[in-house]
Order: sequence, then structure tokens, then C-alpha cells
Amino acid sequence: MTHKVAILGASGYTGAELVRLIASHPALEIGALSGNSKAGMAMADVYPHLRHLDLPRLTTIEDVDFSGIDLAFCALPHATSQAVIAQLPKQVKVVDLSADFRLRDPAEYEKWYGQPHSAPELQEQAVYGLTEFYRADIAKARLVAGTGCNAATGQFILRPLIEAGVIDLDQIILDLKVGASGAGRAAKENLLTAEMVENASAYAVGGKHRHLGEFDQEFSAVAGRKVEIQFTPHLIPASRGILATAYVQGDPAAIHAALAERYADEPFLHVLPVGAVPAMKDVRGSNLCHIGVVADRRANRAIIVGVIDNLTKGSSGQAIQNANLMLGQDETTGLMLAPVFP
Amino acid sequence: MTHKVAILGASGYTGAELVRLIASHPALEIGALSGNSKAGMAMADVYPHLRHLDLPRLTTIEDVDFSGIDLAFCALPHATSQAVIAQLPKQVKVVDLSADFRLRDPAEYEKWYGQPHSAPELQEQAVYGLTEFYRADIAKARLVAGTGCNAATGQFILRPLIEAGVIDLDQIILDLKVGASGAGRAAKENLLTAEMVENASAYAVGGKHRHLGEFDQEFSAVAGRKVEIQFTPHLIPASRGILATAYVQGDPAAIHAALAERYADEPFLHVLPVGAVPAMKDVRGSNLCHIGVVADRRANRAIIVGVIDNLTKGSSGQAIQNANLMLGQDETTGLMLAPVFP
Amino acid sequence: MTHKVAILGASGYTGAELVRLIASHPALEIGALSGNSKAGMAMADVYPHLRHLDLPRLTTIEDVDFSGIDLAFCALPHATSQAVIAQLPKQVKVVDLSADFRLRDPAEYEKWYGQPHSAPELQEQAVYGLTEFYRADIAKARLVAGTGCNAATGQFILRPLIEAGVIDLDQIILDLKVGASGAGRAAKENLLTAEMVENASAYAVGGKHRHLGEFDQEFSAVAGRKVEIQFTPHLIPASRGILATAYVQGDPAAIHAALAERYADEPFLHVLPVGAVPAMKDVRGSNLCHIGVVADRRANRAIIVGVIDNLTKGSSGQAIQNANLMLGQDETTGLMLAPVFP
Amino acid sequence: MTHKVAILGASGYTGAELVRLIASHPALEIGALSGNSKAGMAMADVYPHLRHLDLPRLTTIEDVDFSGIDLAFCALPHATSQAVIAQLPKQVKVVDLSADFRLRDPAEYEKWYGQPHSAPELQEQAVYGLTEFYRADIAKARLVAGTGCNAATGQFILRPLIEAGVIDLDQIILDLKVGASGAGRAAKENLLTAEMVENASAYAVGGKHRHLGEFDQEFSAVAGRKVEIQFTPHLIPASRGILATAYVQGDPAAIHAALAERYADEPFLHVLPVGAVPAMKDVRGSNLCHIGVVADRRANRAIIVGVIDNLTKGSSGQAIQNANLMLGQDETTGLMLAPVFP
Repeated sequence: MTHKVAILGASGYTGAELVRLIASHPALEIGALSGNSKAGMAMADVYPHLRHLDLPRLTTIEDVDFSGIDLAFCALPHATSQAVIAQLPKQVKVVDLSADFRLRDPAEYEKWYGQPHSAPELQEQAVYGLTEFYRADIAKARLVAGTGCNAATGQFILRPLIEAGVIDLDQIILDLKVGASGAGRAAKENLLTAEMVENASAYAVGGKHRHLGEFDQEFSAVAGRKVEIQFTPHLIPASRGILATAYVQGDPAAIHAALAERYADEPFLHVLPVGAVPAMKDVRGSNLCHIGVVADRRANRAIIVGVIDNLTKGSSGQAIQNANLMLGQDETTGLMLAPVFP
Repeated sequence: MTHKVAILGASGYTGAELVRLIASHPALEIGALSGNSKAGMAMADVYPHLRHLDLPRLTTIEDVDFSGIDLAFCALPHATSQAVIAQLPKQVKVVDLSADFRLRDPAEYEKWYGQPHSAPELQEQAVYGLTEFYRADIAKARLVAGTGCNAATGQFILRPLIEAGVIDLDQIILDLKVGASGAGRAAKENLLTAEMVENASAYAVGGKHRHLGEFDQEFSAVAGRKVEIQFTPHLIPASRGILATAYVQGDPAAIHAALAERYADEPFLHVLPVGAVPAMKDVRGSNLCHIGVVADRRANRAIIVGVIDNLTKGSSGQAIQNANLMLGQDETTGLMLAPVFP
Repeated sequence: MTHKVAILGASGYTGAELVRLIASHPALEIGALSGNSKAGMAMADVYPHLRHLDLPRLTTIEDVDFSGIDLAFCALPHATSQAVIAQLPKQVKVVDLSADFRLRDPAEYEKWYGQPHSAPELQEQAVYGLTEFYRADIAKARLVAGTGCNAATGQFILRPLIEAGVIDLDQIILDLKVGASGAGRAAKENLLTAEMVENASAYAVGGKHRHLGEFDQEFSAVAGRKVEIQFTPHLIPASRGILATAYVQGDPAAIHAALAERYADEPFLHVLPVGAVPAMKDVRGSNLCHIGVVADRRANRAIIVGVIDNLTKGSSGQAIQNANLMLGQDETTGLMLAPVFP
Repeated sequence: MTHKVAILGASGYTGAELVRLIASHPALEIGALSGNSKAGMAMADVYPHLRHLDLPRLTTIEDVDFSGIDLAFCALPHATSQAVIAQLPKQVKVVDLSADFRLRDPAEYEKWYGQPHSAPELQEQAVYGLTEFYRADIAKARLVAGTGCNAATGQFILRPLIEAGVIDLDQIILDLKVGASGAGRAAKENLLTAEMVENASAYAVGGKHRHLGEFDQEFSAVAGRKVEIQFTPHLIPASRGILATAYVQGDPAAIHAALAERYADEPFLHVLPVGAVPAMKDVRGSNLCHIGVVADRRANRAIIVGVIDNLTKGSSGQAIQNANLMLGQDETTGLMLAPVFP
């Protein structure tokens, strides 16, 4: 059975990635594409790599006909997203890829995003979209909040360790490397090729990155106490991909075991043998996450390295994984594409 | 119905790309993987991005059990390939990705590859694997010779023009830009990241590139007279992709029309509207080819730009397209993956 | 003796490159830096790589005190440049890095730049800044018009051949590859890292690039007849550098000889032995130009490859070379920095 | 007064970088270049970017005439270096760029490099070449051991903090990102462009990197007790540059003050204002090091980011800085080149 979906905000990178993935998804069909600044354009003129597909023309959100649409992917900027979703017909399920419904506490939203939440009643219904940890709730949800791409990576490598109680909760450091698409398609000077080639830089240093709101919420909930990690993202000269390096204190064998057990049956999450670490490109273009654990020379310390593609498992692939659940499909449908290497 | 295939030489980039594509191909199953220098290893240890797949272990070619194998992809170095294919059981169909069976005249082989051909009788049976131009013969062949990746690109943009007689055959210039994977996985100083970042370089300048053997053979056959183009490939700092820029003399409108008409029904070849040109990344990871034609300010001259992914449409994707035909499948089976952008 | 210079428009890439080069120039001293949009800022806040230098703060152009300034480098956008230069005190010599004074015929300026020239009387005094060909005039000039970076590269490899009469003037094709900084620091979508990594693209295809105005003017003047070349620039994933590949018809030996003889005594221009070609990175960060000539397999045809750094020999290095002449310095002063490789 | 130097092992990246820097050094002259595998070749054929320089031809080490040579830079692989230096005439001063004389304790050398030291008596004379901390000893030394490039970066950002006693010595984590040239010019599969584009990877994870021998030696000596840091280097898709991110526990204000005070008079080391961090490319091609300190949101924790060019301040620039001291020159002579950005 085929389900009809709309993609709102299809002109950004996560929108284009949704289209790419849905193009080979056997049970989803694109019924509408919106992109206010490009309304009226063919998708092939915004993204020539989608030229071979038979796609609806971009419209404004107002012009989307939601009759017959089963589910809307909302790939809009935060703040815009809450306003738009609040107006959608109630029978349309929603997977939101923005930051708007990730934080359960509206005060936290206001703290990290600098403005009050305008749809707190919707927030109450929203399920946090980290599929491997909220599967049952997602299957029943009308509104799922896609996670931050950095937040997903960090949780994949750290969450089972907090659940299992095998690491010191006050000594967690997450050093993350991410390609330029993580910042979206908006033209900014620091994202120019001339600036980024031969470069690397840390940003939002010192606990300022908004995904910390998600880490705090989730890790504290799992631990049953306040957990605050240290987190430094770095921009590297690549277009896609996240490699996260976590430094934790605990028994390396127990750490590896906790991850390996937790993910033993997960189709997308793979824990490498003890001592091996993945490379960022090992999962490019796929919905996979590879994780490696290495014991440090210092006793009771381990390094964990995790990799995902920020646009796939970190946003649009995750969104489709959640949509599959919400629509009663097998969770992996359309998502088993192998990574593109080299 | 599922067909069992073997990949001989699976440890190179084209071998890995075959595995990637077959992983989501509904009618092909990998029965054997060989890689002499890595025999005994798991594919995941040679190519960690394939870790999630259930694949046979790499063996030597001698250890491959060909009973039950319908078709072998031969991704070995040239010269080795002819020797290996000569020994394969006759009931096994073969798609060769090396240069060994591309040139119908053994003297031309010796001229471009510097050694006599050791299996000229096999050469006689081989069909040149440019699918869109040898479709019927490929469907009936036992042995298909995959084209060079540069040779494929050049032919896609030039061959219909020679067929249609719309360009001056003595004034064809092909300036091509290719990523590093075109040179394979062998560790060479000039392919090191430190050398290639911030760099670009021409190689095999002046008519020395071996793919000229293919251009000469094919273009001359089509034209019914000797055609020799000028061809300069350039290495650019990318891992995948080919962008070819052709300079021709003829009526731009007729040139565009010749391409548009020739490819009107081709699933993988797309001719852009007059005046538009494709970018290399528009087809990354896909079996697509995009082509654009622009009239020059000088009368009777046109520039044609074509792009493919050298590892997909330029080798492994083409190989599967041919295998589909040889095995009685629809030609596009398993190959409609959308490009990965950005 | 030290000369005081001002840099107007110091916040762009060519402005920053001027500062870099002047920092190790023994006879130039920076007296003023302007940058209207960044007025009031320290240069280190606009360009952190210049932090170690003791530089004047950025001001508006209006606030520059030109008393004591011997020469102004004008690194402003075209159109702005003519208006600013018209207002400068007459005793201040000017090296303009914009396109405003490159075309001697105001009608040509209007044709290529889409608006009438507002300072045609200044245009009459301007000398075209291709140092190796206008040395004597530059030494006496008050106003020198820096060349386009692509225009410089093309002229270095083609101009001596037109002078010497060794090539067919109607069959000149120039295929050029350039890094992102050639497009400046303005934030544009197509220059984003996410778009350019793994990409290559042709732009201004078909005779639309403005540097053709320079080629037409200069080549026609040298030839004593109208010369129109074909020119296609390509953007490649690099921050700096130009590699130009020219296809010409003529005797390869005569072509090599014409270049080698013309540049035998030039400090910055180096012609490689017959058959060798340079790589883009061989001149990065330097004021050098390397040129190679290869005979094609087809008789009477040659390929010429030339490389420069677009920001150095292509603009700011050339500007200082010209300033040296205008100020009575040795032309190479401060410009003999070796390239940065790898 | 000019000093004559020899470069032994000139065909590697650090050798080429020495040539680049010496080319604009007013007091050093290259008397000999050795490179056993390339003996007989012109340097321009090994490194075309040095074509414009008048350089001696490469010879074997045996063929170097050391009469008249004041100082030899030894850019040979470790183990080879000790054997060669042991044979050099005693009046020749030596700056070694290999790892052979960095570790004062031969047992530590054997532990980290896997073989006994063959010249322990020379080791006793060697001075560790971190100029800013061993200046007086270096000025008097005959043999100076250049530091590891990662080891230099880590020490620049951490050493003053250990000296000042402002951080917890048991909680030091160093996460480092480095370009491909840090691994030298040897052709290895993992350094290929096709592998590294769009990639990032951790290596020597868990306390296995040899530069830990230097960290342990130096930090323990400074602290007067055993100090073992955690250190994870990552390879990123760049040719040059190191960005190091350190996570420490201590008062951020005291940490910033310790760095700022320690380096207040250092010409090459620049501490940014509190809260600012440098980018890797800010120092490319220069002998500079930029350092930034940011307070974490968690009390008593700071993040320190430091950047150098691995081939300049991390090896060849440092080597010349030391040679300047050993030869009685001003330490900065020939080293004040501004970074190349973008």
C-alpha cells in the first residue's frame, strides 16, 4: 500500500535528501512539495540532481492540497515550523525535522532558541524521534520531532552507557567533526569553499550549541539525575558526515558490551569489534551508524567513535524511519541503501 | 528470479561499487567474491562501509566455485583479465570491467597497452559495452567489455553528433576533469591527499591516454572514416565524478537536437534545455548522465558538457546495466538510485 | 626608501592578499586600510590570519588621509572603483584591481559590464597592467588597471604565440579551471562548501565571461586583426589557483620556442621543457607562472598548460609588481616568495 | 653573514618546506641537498614548485661535501637519522627533524619506536627543540631534536598550564585534527585522495601515538610528577595544518592568563582574547601558532584550541628557528612570512 506524503520546505538540503530517499521507497509517494522562496519552480531547477524524477512543482505551503496526504515531512526553519504545523489538518501525521518540538520543556526551548514556544500544546503530543529509543511511542504518534544530527550521533554512542550505568556521568566529553551541510544551504561567509578548504574550526565552543538542550534532556531523563556533558562541534572541509569522538571514564569492556548488547538487533546501528574505530565516510549516503570502542592506556577510560551521515541517519533518513513506523510499514523500508564509498 | 553472480577482483573500487549496487538489486545475488591479495579476509575488513551486508568471504580466483554462477563481473587489472576469463567455464556469462576486450583489433590493443593480446579468439566474441549503442548485441553476448569511464563520457556527448553528421569530424576537442578514484585504489604519490588538495593537473597530454583507442575505434566506425579527436584528461581534487567539456564545430541547434532526439527514450541519459549545463555532482553515486549544449558566441561552434559518476555509469553501474540485459532482466533493474547531493 | 600605500577595499580576498605580500615587502608600508562595510574594525577581526601584524584599523574611504600616501591599491567592486578613483588626489598613484579600467574602449566596457563608464577621461590615462607586456608604460603611469585573473593566465600562454604568428588565430580554445576565491568573498549558494566538494562545473559558457573583453582587446591589438577565442572557465573544489589548458593549431616546436624565447628573461614566468606540464599547486601563494607545451598526436596541434595563483600573480601580486615599477623599485621586490607545497 | 646548510633527506615534505623557507632567508644558503632514492635528480623534478630556485642537485648522503657546511638539517626517517648523524663531522651543527633524539630516556625510545637506540651517547647531547621552552640550551647545542608536530601543538597549549599549576593533571584530554602531510609523502592507501575526500578518521586511538612519548617526558618533567594525557589524533581532508582541542579542568580565567602571560613576548605565539578560538587555516604556511581559551558552561572547565601548520611551526619552520639560534642569528630571521589565506 502506498502512502502519500508532502514535504514542506523541500528546497533545503534535508528536503532534497527526503526526495532522494523517497524516490526508491516502495511505499511512499510524494504528493506535494512546498518551498516558499522557490514556489513555482520545478524541483529540477532547484536541485538538478533530481531531474530524472517525476515530481510535483514547488508551491507555497498555503497552496498545498492536504486532502489525500497521509503524512507531512516538515523541513522548515525552527520557529516557522511550529506555526506551520499548528495549522495542518489534524488527520495529517507529521514528522518535523526542525528543532521546534525536540525539547519537552518550553522553558528549555526558550533558553536555547531565544524565544517563547508558540505551540506548547502541540509540544505535549510530540514524541522525540530517536527511533531506536522511542520506537513504540513513535509508532503511535501524530507528531514526531526529528532529533538534531549532532544530538543523534552523541546519543547513539553515549545513551546505552548511561542506561547501563557504566560510565562516570560527570566526565563525559564529546568532540564532534561535521561537514558543511550540517549548517544548511543558506549562503554564509564561513561556509564558503574558499574559507573551508584546508581549514577546520571549532564553533559554539563552551556549551553554547543548541543540541546541548537535547543532550541535557535525554541524558538526564535516562540517568534520573542531571547530566551535563561537554560538547564541542568542529566544521571540517567535507559536505556530508559526522564523526564524534567521546571520552568517557568507565571499564572499556563493559562499555563495549553495553553498546554491543543494546544494538545487537538494530538494523542500522553496528558496533565494531573491540579496538576498531569507524571512519566518517563508511556510512556516507546511508542510514547506518557505525560505533567503535577503544580502551585508553589509562585505566578505566575509553574512547568511543561514532559516525553517521548528518543528512541521512542524522535527519532525513531518520525521518523516513519514523514515518515508516507511523504508517505501519517495516521500519527499514526504503532505507537499506549501502553507503557510497569512496 | 534471482541470478547468482561472482565478482572477481572485488577488492578494488569498481568491485566495491558492484557490491554496493547489487546490495539493492532485486534479482542479483552475490555468490562469490575473489581478491587474490586479500584472500581470506572478510569484505568488511577491506571495505568497512559494506559491514552491514551478509557477503561471502574473499577467496582466490582458483577457489571460486563457479557451479551455480550465472555471470561473473571481472574487475581485474588489464592483462590479468584476459588470462582469467579464458579459463572461466563457458556457461558463465562475463562482464569485464578491464580494458582487455574493448579494442576489436588486437594490433590496436598492443599499440595502446604495450603487449600482445593473449586471448584474441575471446576478443572476437566480445561486445563493446556501451549499452545505449550496443543494446541488442549485449543482450545476446556471453562476454561484454565494459568501456573506459572517460571513453563512456566522451561517447555519450559526441557519438550522436557523429552519427547525425552535424559536426566537423576534424575539429573535436575533449577536455575532461575526473576525480581520483578513476585511477583506482593503488597507492601512488600523485594521488595522495597532500598532493591533490588545492591542485589540478593534466595527464596523458597530447594523445597518450589509452581511452583514445576506444574513441578512435568507435568514432571511426560510426563515421565510416578515420576520426581522431584531441583529448586531455585532468585530475581534480574529488574522489568521484567526471565532467567532460567538448568543443565542436557545427550548428548548435542541430547539435542539441541530435542529442535530445537520440536520448529521448533513454532512462539514464538526460539532455538539458538549450543553454543549460550540468555539474559533476548532479549525478554522484547514480547511473545517470546529464548533458548540456551551449552555443558559442562564434558562429557554428558549440560547447557540450557531460557528467557521469566514473564508478557507476562509468564502470560498475554500466556493468550491471549490461548484466541485466544479458540475464533477461529489465535494463534499469537496481539502477534507479537517485544521486547523492550535496 | 619606503613608500606609503593605502589599500581601498581591504576586506576582500585581494585586499587581504595585498596585506600578506606587503607584510614582507621591504619598501612598502601600509598607511591606510579602508573597507566601508567593516569600517571601525581591526583587520585581525576580519582576517584573523593577519593578527600578528601591526596594521591600521579599517576606515571608510572618506576617512582615509591621503597626505603622505604615495600609491593606492583599489580593490573595490567594479563600478564603485571608477567613482572612487575619480575622487582621489592627483598626486596619488593608483593600481586598480577591479575591472573598471581594463577595457580601453568605453563601448566595450558597457557591453561587458552592462552600464556606461562614468570616468572615460581616466580610462584614457589607464595602462593595462599585464606587467610583462606593458612594463615601460606602467613605470610611467599614474593609473594602472590590473588584469582579470583568468585574462592574465590566458594571455601568458597565448600572447607570445599571437605575437610570433605561430598559431591559427581562428582556432584558439581556452579551457580554464579555477578555485573558489576567484569569485571573491561574497556569500553565494553555488560557492558553498557543501555544493563544491566533489563537484566541478562550467560557468559563463559560450562566450559570456567578462574577461573575454580583455582577450578580444589584447589579442586583436597584438594580431592587428580581430581575434576571438573560445573560453570556458570551470569552478573546481579548491580555494586558490588557476590551471588553463589551451588548444591551438600550429607547429608545437615553434610554439614552445616562441614562449621560451619570450619569457627567457622573465623572473616570474617559467616555460617547462617540451612535453612537461605544470600542476596548479606548483605556484600556490607565489607570483610565479609555469607554462608547458605538448605536441598532440595530430600534426600541427599543441596543448599548452599554464598555472598561476589567481590571488597572487592573477591580482594582488601583479598589483605589487606594477606598484614596484611605478615607484621606481625593482620589479621583483617583495615578490620572490616560493610557492607553498604541498 | 651567510651560513651554509645541508638538507639531508630533501625529497620529503619537510625537506621541501625547508627549501621554501630558506629561499627567502637572508642568512642561510643551501650548500647541499641529499635524497638517496632520488640522487642525481634536480630538485625541480622532485618538487616542481621549486623550479625557479637555483639549487644544488640531489646527491646521496655519502656524496655530500660537508666542508664549509655550518649546519645540517636532517629530515630522514627515524632510525636512519641516528645512524647518519653519528657519522657527520663534529664541527657540523645538526637540527634533526626525525623522532630519533626527542626522547631523553633510551628505554622510552625503544618502547615507542620498537627498537633500541643505536646512538645513546648522541642522545645525551641532544636538546629538545621546542624553541620557546629550550631557547638557551638550543643556542648552545650542537644537536637539536625537532619535536613531533602534534607534540608541539599540544605543548603550546598545555605546557604553560602545567607550569603554572592551574589545571588538574589527571584530566587532560587532547583531541587533534591534522591534514595528510603529517603522514609524509609515502604512498599509502589510507592517504589516497579517493579515501580522504569526504572523510575523517581517528588513528592511533587509545594512547598508541608515538608523540605521547614526548608528552609524557615533557609534561612529567614540568610537573615534577608523572603526567599522562589522553590523546586522539584525527586525519581530516586537508593537506596541511593542525587544530588541537584540549579539554582541561581548572579556572578558565587563570588558564587564559597563564597562556597570555607565558607568551606575551613570543613573536610566533599569539593568545586570542578570552572566548575567541582560532581556525586551522589562520596560520597556514607560517611559523605562527594561535591559541584560544573558552570557559565551558560547567564550572572549572575550559576548552583550549590551538593551531599550527604542521610543516612549518610543526617541523621545518621550528627547525629554522632553532638553526637561527644555533648560528647566532635573530630567532625570527626568515620566518615572519604571513599566512596564506584563503
